[in-house]
Amino acid sequence: MPVVDEVVAKGVRERRLDIARDERRIPGVLWTPAEDAQPRPVVMLGHGASGSKRQDYVLALARGLVRHHGLSALAIDGPVHGDRRVDGSTDGERAFLDFAQVWSAQEDLIDTMVADWRAALDVAQSFDEVAPGPCGFWGLSMGTIFGLPLVAAEDRVAVAVLGLMGIAGPTKARFAADAPEVRCPVLFLVQWDDEIFARSRALDLFGALGSADKRLHAHPGRHAEVPAEEFEASARFLEKHLQY
Amino acid sequence: MPVVDEVVAKGVRERRLDIARDERRIPGVLWTPAEDAQPRPVVMLGHGASGSKRQDYVLALARGLVRHHGLSALAIDGPVHGDRRVDGSTDGERAFLDFAQVWSAQEDLIDTMVADWRAALDVAQSFDEVAPGPCGFWGLSMGTIFGLPLVAAEDRVAVAVLGLMGIAGPTKARFAADAPEVRCPVLFLVQWDDEIFARSRALDLFGALGSADKRLHAHPGRHAEVPAEEFEASARFLEKHLQY
Repeated sequence: MPVVDEVVAKGVRERRLDIARDERRIPGVLWTPAEDAQPRPVVMLGHGASGSKRQDYVLALARGLVRHHGLSALAIDGPVHGDRRVDGSTDGERAFLDFAQVWSAQEDLIDTMVADWRAALDVAQSFDEVAPGPCGFWGLSMGTIFGLPLVAAEDRVAVAVLGLMGIAGPTKARFAADAPEVRCPVLFLVQWDDEIFARSRALDLFGALGSADKRLHAHPGRHAEVPAEEFEASARFLEKHLQY
Repeated sequence: MPVVDEVVAKGVRERRLDIARDERRIPGVLWTPAEDAQPRPVVMLGHGASGSKRQDYVLALARGLVRHHGLSALAIDGPVHGDRRVDGSTDGERAFLDFAQVWSAQEDLIDTMVADWRAALDVAQSFDEVAPGPCGFWGLSMGTIFGLPLVAAEDRVAVAVLGLMGIAGPTKARFAADAPEVRCPVLFLVQWDDEIFARSRALDLFGALGSADKRLHAHPGRHAEVPAEEFEASARFLEKHLQY
């Protein structure tokens, strides 16, 4: 089993996983209820550039999904982030810059991360507490850079929260091609004054999503200023579409 | 007293009001709980062109606010609509065309309707079941054409749901001037494929609102296809800001 560590706190069991895929080791975290053994749908949580699989908002969202929304949660580190870093650095700015570099230079970056997510999902769904079949995805910014192609490719994803991204950047052609393939219900978040991804490109991406059931929520503020209201809306939205 | 009729159904008291302002008679409806005499904040509900103060979605929203959200509700007919029509016509298309006409031709149209709303609010707040002070406004399309200037002018309005409108039409200069004067929390609704008011003009209007606390929710579909999800979100949003 890929469990390398396990803690229980306030009703939530948190397992540190090392997931093997070919020669790769994918560092992940799985959150399930400590007391409830009934299988629950899992939500994949994709962190943003400079963060990690256990950064504050990922951890808070994961625990909230387990405690209040009847779900389980899974996160993995993105490339050049968290426990994937060979230099062991925890400097967010450095990870951000390294990501910008590999996003431009590494041609298989997205396909590799999509495969990592699918391997992690397989492992998560092998636990008794995690339901097979329909699952959710939540990821903003870099979380959407990898999450949008994942959601387009993976039939198990039944609901997604995406955003803080546009048809922009080195892989914009990939986003433009994959967006129409997204068919599940989507909540798409936009920050009105986003200084990293232009609002107009984000609106283009929302417009291109293939889902008939989609909604855009926008707030004033910069890229990283998503209000608590939308984390709460995210959790309700995921629950609504996974608890049936 | 201005009450001309009264019915009680499923816990909601509905009073038909004739509100006098100078020589004018303003036809309105007030919804309060049948059993609860505690004063509750009121939400003004502005209907859209072709509708009336008691059209289906206004009635459903009013009853829902009373039954489930601890509020009361008030609606009045817009100009050339409902019981304001001298010809007694209930033809929505005719009212729509007549409105397009007066919107272009009648210079004091907006100021007159703002004054009507304020007179109606005064009367509503004179009832024991309606709390004085902070109140809400909800109105889309024509409801926003009159509601935006009302919210900008009336200090009692502490929260507003607006939308399906842009900086557009005969009074677009008025909207551009009033939008920065709106300071209360706002939920602004946009239909992505709005065939009446262009999306880009609606985004401009949202951007121009002076409120620091504002959010835009957009859905695919045409002007009149606002999903039930946003009526529910409206009610929760109004309750959150009026129940404290």
